Amino acid sequence: MTARNPRWTGVIPPVVTPLTADGEIDRPSLERVVGHLLDGGVSGLFALGSSGETAYLTPGRQDEVVEVITSACAGQVPVLVGAIETTTDRAIERARAAEGLGADAVVATAPFYTRTHPTEIDRHFRDIAAALDLPVLAYDVPVCVHSKLDPELLLPLAADGVLAGVKDSSGDDGSFRRLAIGARELPEFSVLTGHELVVDAMMLAGADGSVPGLGNVDPHGYVRLHEAAVRDDWAAARAEQDRLVALFDIVRAARPGTASATAAGLGAFKTALMLRGIIGTNAMSAPMRRLDAAETAEIAACLDRAGLSRV
Amino acid sequence: MTARNPRWTGVIPPVVTPLTADGEIDRPSLERVVGHLLDGGVSGLFALGSSGETAYLTPGRQDEVVEVITSACAGQVPVLVGAIETTTDRAIERARAAEGLGADAVVATAPFYTRTHPTEIDRHFRDIAAALDLPVLAYDVPVCVHSKLDPELLLPLAADGVLAGVKDSSGDDGSFRRLAIGARELPEFSVLTGHELVVDAMMLAGADGSVPGLGNVDPHGYVRLHEAAVRDDWAAARAEQDRLVALFDIVRAARPGTASATAAGLGAFKTALMLRGIIGTNAMSAPMRRLDAAETAEIAACLDRAGLSRV
Amino acid sequence: MTARNPRWTGVIPPVVTPLTADGEIDRPSLERVVGHLLDGGVSGLFALGSSGETAYLTPGRQDEVVEVITSACAGQVPVLVGAIETTTDRAIERARAAEGLGADAVVATAPFYTRTHPTEIDRHFRDIAAALDLPVLAYDVPVCVHSKLDPELLLPLAADGVLAGVKDSSGDDGSFRRLAIGARELPEFSVLTGHELVVDAMMLAGADGSVPGLGNVDPHGYVRLHEAAVRDDWAAARAEQDRLVALFDIVRAARPGTASATAAGLGAFKTALMLRGIIGTNAMSAPMRRLDAAETAEIAACLDRAGLSRV
Amino acid sequence: MTARNPRWTGVIPPVVTPLTADGEIDRPSLERVVGHLLDGGVSGLFALGSSGETAYLTPGRQDEVVEVITSACAGQVPVLVGAIETTTDRAIERARAAEGLGADAVVATAPFYTRTHPTEIDRHFRDIAAALDLPVLAYDVPVCVHSKLDPELLLPLAADGVLAGVKDSSGDDGSFRRLAIGARELPEFSVLTGHELVVDAMMLAGADGSVPGLGNVDPHGYVRLHEAAVRDDWAAARAEQDRLVALFDIVRAARPGTASATAAGLGAFKTALMLRGIIGTNAMSAPMRRLDAAETAEIAACLDRAGLSRV
Repeated sequence: MTARNPRWTGVIPPVVTPLTADGEIDRPSLERVVGHLLDGGVSGLFALGSSGETAYLTPGRQDEVVEVITSACAGQVPVLVGAIETTTDRAIERARAAEGLGADAVVATAPFYTRTHPTEIDRHFRDIAAALDLPVLAYDVPVCVHSKLDPELLLPLAADGVLAGVKDSSGDDGSFRRLAIGARELPEFSVLTGHELVVDAMMLAGADGSVPGLGNVDPHGYVRLHEAAVRDDWAAARAEQDRLVALFDIVRAARPGTASATAAGLGAFKTALMLRGIIGTNAMSAPMRRLDAAETAEIAACLDRAGLSRV
Repeated sequence: MTARNPRWTGVIPPVVTPLTADGEIDRPSLERVVGHLLDGGVSGLFALGSSGETAYLTPGRQDEVVEVITSACAGQVPVLVGAIETTTDRAIERARAAEGLGADAVVATAPFYTRTHPTEIDRHFRDIAAALDLPVLAYDVPVCVHSKLDPELLLPLAADGVLAGVKDSSGDDGSFRRLAIGARELPEFSVLTGHELVVDAMMLAGADGSVPGLGNVDPHGYVRLHEAAVRDDWAAARAEQDRLVALFDIVRAARPGTASATAAGLGAFKTALMLRGIIGTNAMSAPMRRLDAAETAEIAACLDRAGLSRV
Repeated sequence: MTARNPRWTGVIPPVVTPLTADGEIDRPSLERVVGHLLDGGVSGLFALGSSGETAYLTPGRQDEVVEVITSACAGQVPVLVGAIETTTDRAIERARAAEGLGADAVVATAPFYTRTHPTEIDRHFRDIAAALDLPVLAYDVPVCVHSKLDPELLLPLAADGVLAGVKDSSGDDGSFRRLAIGARELPEFSVLTGHELVVDAMMLAGADGSVPGLGNVDPHGYVRLHEAAVRDDWAAARAEQDRLVALFDIVRAARPGTASATAAGLGAFKTALMLRGIIGTNAMSAPMRRLDAAETAEIAACLDRAGLSRV
Repeated sequence: MTARNPRWTGVIPPVVTPLTADGEIDRPSLERVVGHLLDGGVSGLFALGSSGETAYLTPGRQDEVVEVITSACAGQVPVLVGAIETTTDRAIERARAAEGLGADAVVATAPFYTRTHPTEIDRHFRDIAAALDLPVLAYDVPVCVHSKLDPELLLPLAADGVLAGVKDSSGDDGSFRRLAIGARELPEFSVLTGHELVVDAMMLAGADGSVPGLGNVDPHGYVRLHEAAVRDDWAAARAEQDRLVALFDIVRAARPGTASATAAGLGAFKTALMLRGIIGTNAMSAPMRRLDAAETAEIAACLDRAGLSRV
């Protein structure tokens, strides 16, 4: 086994996209989010991920988000940009736009909307990588794209230099374990978990880092968790994770039966960031609704219990 | 019960998008497809549906498809255009482009990729309709978007004038029956089935028309089926449908385990059109593969059995 | 094509299982249900189907149900009995019990709880048939067993004399159409639909008969529908079906979010039979709850609108 | 937080059920499996779980299995017995049989085959517990029963003394983490993971023990893993788990597309036990096939790589 030296490690949060009340990108708020995350010690930023409402943003607004984040970040950490589109040519078009705006890497899912097949997913990633100069990471998110990226598919793509890493939001930790074990022979391939409730466990299982949506709200906590795991202080990692699991209760603030899981979850992240004074409003992209005053009060209570400052 | 007078009736095929070997829109072939469909007696054209590989086309190519179809159609029948995007603002952006290119109506699905909720789907259609001057039809396609549009959601949208019709590709014929019964009180609301193997049955159940992908290959057959149903000649409708079910076996020509259902199905439609002399190649969008010679020979045999001419 | 002469045709309702308030089989009520169905003109009875709460009954109670039904039926029509168990040996054990109690045929699903595979499903039906003297029908009910019986699986089993018929509750009418077409070469193989909202459409598509749960409530209606279809009076068939679709609204009487679809649906059938004076109570098997007074009142209103007598 | 003192901890394998070539229980082999597991240091035995082919066994054979296991175990460790049936009364009937045969606890799933609802699942467990003198554990196995047992459902049942523990085979480790955190206030409630590829990670996340199917093949390994985790030696736990993940490759020995995941997985466990000299044959219950010579050779190679003795 070669010593591992993956390019992407640490905490790389999928950056939320603050909006103004009329649905435009709230640039000053987004700049403050970037500052907040950098202050937390993150080692990268993932723009235009699911938590960034990328599926809700027109290409023009997507470009604006990348522009603001790369400017605000100013090279302090790498910026990964999602090119999350239904199929190959569409993903390439968005990836090239990101490339032109200063992205350091591109993140792509399997095809979606259409039905797909492992041979097609394989070609999808190969075509995307061939069309770009940037490294490409795969984003395994079956809850969104309704297919799973198995280690048998990913590891050959890594070995061939097509993929530089993977963000695993599949929730399938057995598969993740097999991926992490396979990655030991691929020293530069990054294995990142998006399973934000068990980052300690996935670090134990071999993750190089994490991409936690909740990391928007408490980047310092996830960075402490990561550092504890890296120094094999598993008691500290577990304690930090337990605290973050409790904080994650903010996603249950939305009244049952009144919003999608996406609106409840991302709405909670935005509401928490608003309460923490980082962003201006908790406005959500259409057709999602924003969380209301009662729901916001519940989130405030969660923040207090987690020991997070509010304004 | 008011007499029904729905705007959209008859056969409205989801037009396939012929490609050149290097992946560009094959304009002359697309023009011939339009001519072939009009010759078959269709009452409308649905551009940029799932069968049109819309999920594989960049916005620029989508616009090109609409331009070619509206030009070639030249107002002989209405052109419906899919604005099939993950969420509201993105769908509106594409819908406005279609509007500018001469579309007569816009067809939109529920949000996808993201998780959604009935209250959000309701707002999605209302926002889309409010942003356009064109009529909007809903496209119920759970196999692609992973949520179902229930009659309880659709009928109020129809009653409020938000929706002008629905294309039902859900395969849930019980739900379709309930929708068709509800539509009796909504005289201008069109209830169209995309369930191409049971169009006769769905016409009996109350459909105003059909949107059959297989109608690309044999528009004359589907038009005869529709006309037989309209004149209550159910034996003729059934016989025509039975013949078309046999023809549908072309979608099983792809060797098992080597392609997605989409590649197998749309690939078969294109291969059949190539064999019939309508389009130049059976090239498919990346990352799908095109059907090969052995598979093409199977499709040729199906065409022969169905009594369809080949070149 | 040989003339079809399938053994099982007409309306064969899946008989509900009335219970006493303390959860025992209510034998007098069950006898009255049998009388009610025979009075309606049904051509067979399906005991221990999903609508018969078979999954809720211990083997002892299952035997009691078969005994009561075969006694009350007294050979007037054939009695089909479900042997719905997780796997082969368990199904055979229950099928043999049914055989001993006078069943005329046995109905079995694919294996469930366990994961399965087409080769295993094939062997499952072959082993069951080999172990019995009775004819075996397949019950295609993916909503319960989570696998689908495709025509490619069923037709060879029919051709080999393993299966005497199929009850299709898959809701996949395209598959059903292909099955019905394939059955034309199998003159004695019965193709029955359980899709109670589109029986007219499925008769047009080639069904030999139907197995409608709602047929417990209104057997006369389903028999009229069947007879209209058989004599090619599709307008009458459609009108009868439309009335029955409206009657089916009884399954929406249960307050949303308070009961499973099974409890709501079967509870509605039982409540309607109680209101019609056929059975004593609307008691349900544990852990389902019975419908309450307000829900019962809604069902009564549906019965009135459908023109069904109440006591 | 009270000190935890859960009754069930350590490694409690779901015991496989060896069969003779003609499908009967192979009693001597089963006795040897029990001895092998006790020798490995397990702290309990789970009879009639999914890995015990319980869904394939008639009630008579189930009783025989319990009888052999309780006899062979002779009180050295507790014996938990699955009462895995579609619904409440059926599960109670089997649970009482287990009680009469010396079971120390009963394990039940949510209702299956039928559709169900959280209020019904809640009543299901309450009714089962009320009918028995034995402790009841919940078995969360959505891949089999197609519903998930959420912490919001389980924790109140634990607090009310209905449930003594849970075996979590959901694969949803975020949910498991929330369950484990909730269990801290329930000192006697056992939280056991069935996620055999990440037992180390789930121990870190708060599991009291594990129920690994693969533990049949290598009980010593899982016991070492458990003990390392308990003494906070996470490097040792991880190394042991990594070795077991590699061993788990035996489940991929079955040729793709020729068997269900159940037949491939349980067949591999049995084949490995046969190769290790514990059981006589790798015969499987109908309709599953047994693994053949080529597949057996692959499994032998895995055993060798994992350093496990063979005869």
